[in-house]
Formats: sequence, C-alpha cells, structure tokens
Amino acid sequence: MGVTGTSTLSVGYQGETGAYSEEAVEKLFPGSTAIAHQNFDDVFAGVVDGALDAGVVPIENSLFGSVHVNYDHLREFDVRIVAEAQVRIRHNLMALRGATLEGINEVRSHPQALGQCKVFLRTNLPQARVHASYDTAGAAKEIALGHSPTVAAIASVRAAEHYGLEILASGIESNHQNYTRFLALVPAARAGERAGAGGPSAASTTVAHKTSLVYAMHSTVPGALFNSLAVFASRNIDLLKIESRPLVGTPGSYLFYLDLDGRVEEESVANALQQLAESTDYIKVMGSYPRAAYHEAD
Amino acid sequence: MGVTGTSTLSVGYQGETGAYSEEAVEKLFPGSTAIAHQNFDDVFAGVVDGALDAGVVPIENSLFGSVHVNYDHLREFDVRIVAEAQVRIRHNLMALRGATLEGINEVRSHPQALGQCKVFLRTNLPQARVHASYDTAGAAKEIALGHSPTVAAIASVRAAEHYGLEILASGIESNHQNYTRFLALVPAARAGERAGAGGPSAASTTVAHKTSLVYAMHSTVPGALFNSLAVFASRNIDLLKIESRPLVGTPGSYLFYLDLDGRVEEESVANALQQLAESTDYIKVMGSYPRAAYHEAD
Repeated sequence: MGVTGTSTLSVGYQGETGAYSEEAVEKLFPGSTAIAHQNFDDVFAGVVDGALDAGVVPIENSLFGSVHVNYDHLREFDVRIVAEAQVRIRHNLMALRGATLEGINEVRSHPQALGQCKVFLRTNLPQARVHASYDTAGAAKEIALGHSPTVAAIASVRAAEHYGLEILASGIESNHQNYTRFLALVPAARAGERAGAGGPSAASTTVAHKTSLVYAMHSTVPGALFNSLAVFASRNIDLLKIESRPLVGTPGSYLFYLDLDGRVEEESVANALQQLAESTDYIKVMGSYPRAAYHEAD
Repeated sequence: MGVTGTSTLSVGYQGETGAYSEEAVEKLFPGSTAIAHQNFDDVFAGVVDGALDAGVVPIENSLFGSVHVNYDHLREFDVRIVAEAQVRIRHNLMALRGATLEGINEVRSHPQALGQCKVFLRTNLPQARVHASYDTAGAAKEIALGHSPTVAAIASVRAAEHYGLEILASGIESNHQNYTRFLALVPAARAGERAGAGGPSAASTTVAHKTSLVYAMHSTVPGALFNSLAVFASRNIDLLKIESRPLVGTPGSYLFYLDLDGRVEEESVANALQQLAESTDYIKVMGSYPRAAYHEAD
C-alpha cells in the first residue's frame, strides 16, 4: 500500500453512492475515501495500476450465490485478498422528511428488494403501487430529487443518510438472513508490505484465518475431486467452502473454489497446497486473511 | 399435469415479456403459454396450487453463480425437476425501425448488460451516453413506446421481436460464455404421471440423466463432506456439481448441493443415496432428468 499514518486511503467499489458495497468499504477500511466505479473490473484495474490503494468487491450473497465474475477477475488480475467482511443487507422504507407511512402511495426500489419486502408492502401499504428502479440507492436519490411526500424508496440506512431521507420502517425484508460477503483487495506485489502496517490484514496470528484458492482439473468428479480433497482431509484441515464450476466450452473441465481453515504460513497448509498442485492443471492461492463472522446485530 | 394432447400448457416464469427466462420456457415447453410472474416464489406457488401446469426458473448462471433463493424454494415447495435447459445470454443492440448505428446517442439496459457490452459501446458508440434500466426487456419496451430513433436498448432477440425493434448489432457482449441454466418444475405428486405423457421428461432412459439433491450436515468440512462423497466415489458415480453453502445463524452447519450422473432408478444411485441419508441431518432428492448441453450455436 505504501500509505500509512494519517493519509486517507482511496478504496474503490462498484455501485452508486449509498450502495451496500459502500458499507463494506467503511467496515473494511474505516475512515477511507470510498470511490464509486461503474464495473467490477474497473475496481480490479484501479488496484493493480495504483490509481486505488485498495478495492472492495462482493464475492457471494447468502440468497443469490457466488459472484463468479469476481472469481474470474481474481484469477485475471494480480491482486491479493487481505480481509473479508459480512454485510447484512437490511432494507428500509424511506421518504422525504415529514412523510408518513399512511400517506405513501408509491414505492420504488430494485425489483429484488421489492420482492424481498413484498409481505411488508402487502400488509402495511396495500394501497401503494410499486415502481422498479435499477438500483436501491438510485431509488433513494430519485426520492430526494423529487418533491412528493407520497413516494418512498427501499434502500440502505446509508442511502437514507446520504440523501437526507427519513426512515419510516426498518428491516422490512421477509428473510433476515441476507448477507453479502465482501473481499478487501490490494496489489499482490504490495500485500507483504501491508502485513505490519495496520488495516485489515494486521490482525494477530492468533485470530482464526482462512485461505482462499481456486484450481482447475480436466477430469470426472469425484474421481479427481475426491482425491484432491484427500490432501486436506489427511491433514485434518477443515474446508469452509467448496464450489465446482463447469468451464463452458471445455466439457469435463471444472474450476473448484475452496476456502480452508488456516494460513499458507502453516506447514500443514503449505504441504497440502504443494501436494494439490501436483495433480491440478492450474492453481492460484488468492490470499490468507482473518475470518469474519456474520453479525446478527448489524 | 393432467394436460395432454392438444391442450396448451400454462408455464410460469419470472420476469418481463421478452426476458431471457421466456426463451427458456419456449425451449423446455415448445408451444406452451408463458405466463410472467413478478417473483420466483409466485412461480413455485402456482405450480404447487395448480394455477400453472409447470414452472421454469433459473438455477445458476455461468458468470453470476447459483441462484440460492431458488434452491431454497426447491426445498420449501413440493415440486419435482423434470428437465433443464442451458440458455445463452446473447445481447443485441436494438432501436426503432430505420435507426442507424451511427445515429445512436443513448443506450439503455440493465447495468449488468451495459457492463458486459462496454467494449462494444466504447469502440462503436463512443458518442452515446448509457442509461441504466431495471431490466433488459424493460429497456426494449421503453424504446418501443418512445419515438426517438437515436435511443437504443440492449436486450434479447425475443425482446426485439416482441416490441417490433430492429437489431443493429448482435452478440455484442465481451464474454460469450454467458449461460443461464433453467429448471422445469411440476408438482411432485404429479411428476410420475408425466413420465410417459410427452414433454421434457419423456426422454428415453438411454439419454444421459442427472439427479439433483440437497443435503445438510452439522459438522466440519471435509471431515464429513469427504465421507459423504465417498458413498459416490466408491460406486464410480460421477458428480457434475458440488457446492457448499453455510447456513446463516447456525455456525458449522452447511447445505450441500449435488448433481450426479445417473437416475434414482439405478441401483447404484439408489444405494448411494440411502447410505448418504444415514449420515445427514436432512436430504431431499429434487429429481432425475435428462442432461442438457451448452449449445454454442445458440
């Protein structure tokens, strides 16, 4: 990173101001300057070329699955994962100051958010029509720029604060177990420098760590998968995530994503990875970093 | 189903008219009537309560991962998978008839589609500004309802046909390996009836089949995962997909999604599943059905 002390870090994320990704930046790099980007690969490119000190991208959501496109970018760009955060996606109904729940006759948000809150809407706002926006934070912005106290948005607390809106109801989603896991990325070449320089990767070695890797095999599964997992099972290394992904265009070839319990600095982990490398077509270790828990109280 | 011969099947999907999901309905149930729904669970509910003859839902995308929310619905609703289809997500630039590529100064689509086509846009339409819509088919609809030959949408061929728009450029996405896998669902109680009645599940037993299941274990991984996979490895049953998913709120508990090569009617598969059931907290076999390949020519 090369940025220490009182300098403010520039941290890239994808989305609008007020998006849930911006919350992840604040959680992973408190006090940093969050810089919005239109696309995920713009964030990765900014980290690699030095325009950004770090990047924050979503890697999986508890309801909507892994973000394969970011796994692809993790393979393509020379970055290292140094931390993770679980951000609870908590939806709120918000409107101009002075508006009341009873007076709302239109609700705007991303279709996914509208769907997640439909029980609340049916019960509390049966009179309101719903209007799909392309983004939750974008819907909040529309409300702020308009002048109607009868129109509400569904978005994050951060969006309400940013656009000066009043929250009429909180946590209105039906399924509260909606979390997105974000990764903090730095240039691979500078990942070592950071270890002792503060920030997310500076946690002591007594903290539980995980290691993320991706590997590819051309083979049937589990013939090969079973054997590849044996390198961990035989060393009592726990896996925290496993996912196969067929490589489109090359039938029989798979990518496997693994998160395992431990650090590459541990001998058993290093030995397991070395043994795995002997039987795979491709392997990339994307980083070892402190494990984050789900925070129910968020 | 109870619907045979010349009756038209009612098949539910989620999305707008002209959405990629509608293509999946046509592929899985040719000649059926596709009925748009706002949410995935509305489709599942319609299948179970008999309002629909069948449902079609996305389960994973090659760039954006598994749709966990539909895996959840597969556990909650009493449905059976009877077929699958791979639909290539192919983006096209479209505008009012008579419009020209040179004359376009604004492009509308879902932000994901705009991102996937940004190289085309930078190269061919550097003068055009982009405008995010909440849905690709919705963007096409906006163009059709407007009167400006200078505004274009990025959406499916089906959307162009439905809204009477002219395609100015095809396959403009940078990554052509963008496929969504869709499942055909019928009520579990009636899945047996269909086997001989035509439609997607009537394929002969000589066709390669897969079986999809989900199971849960409270345990470390791979201690238990490794053992659970042994029931398949020891019988030479190949796995086509494996994915773990942490159960939020119950640390150490995981759901595992498996697709395996074979049918539950085969003795080795039946025995493996029986052995697996002995060591899991929960198991549900969601169906055996013909395997669909990726169709590069789509």
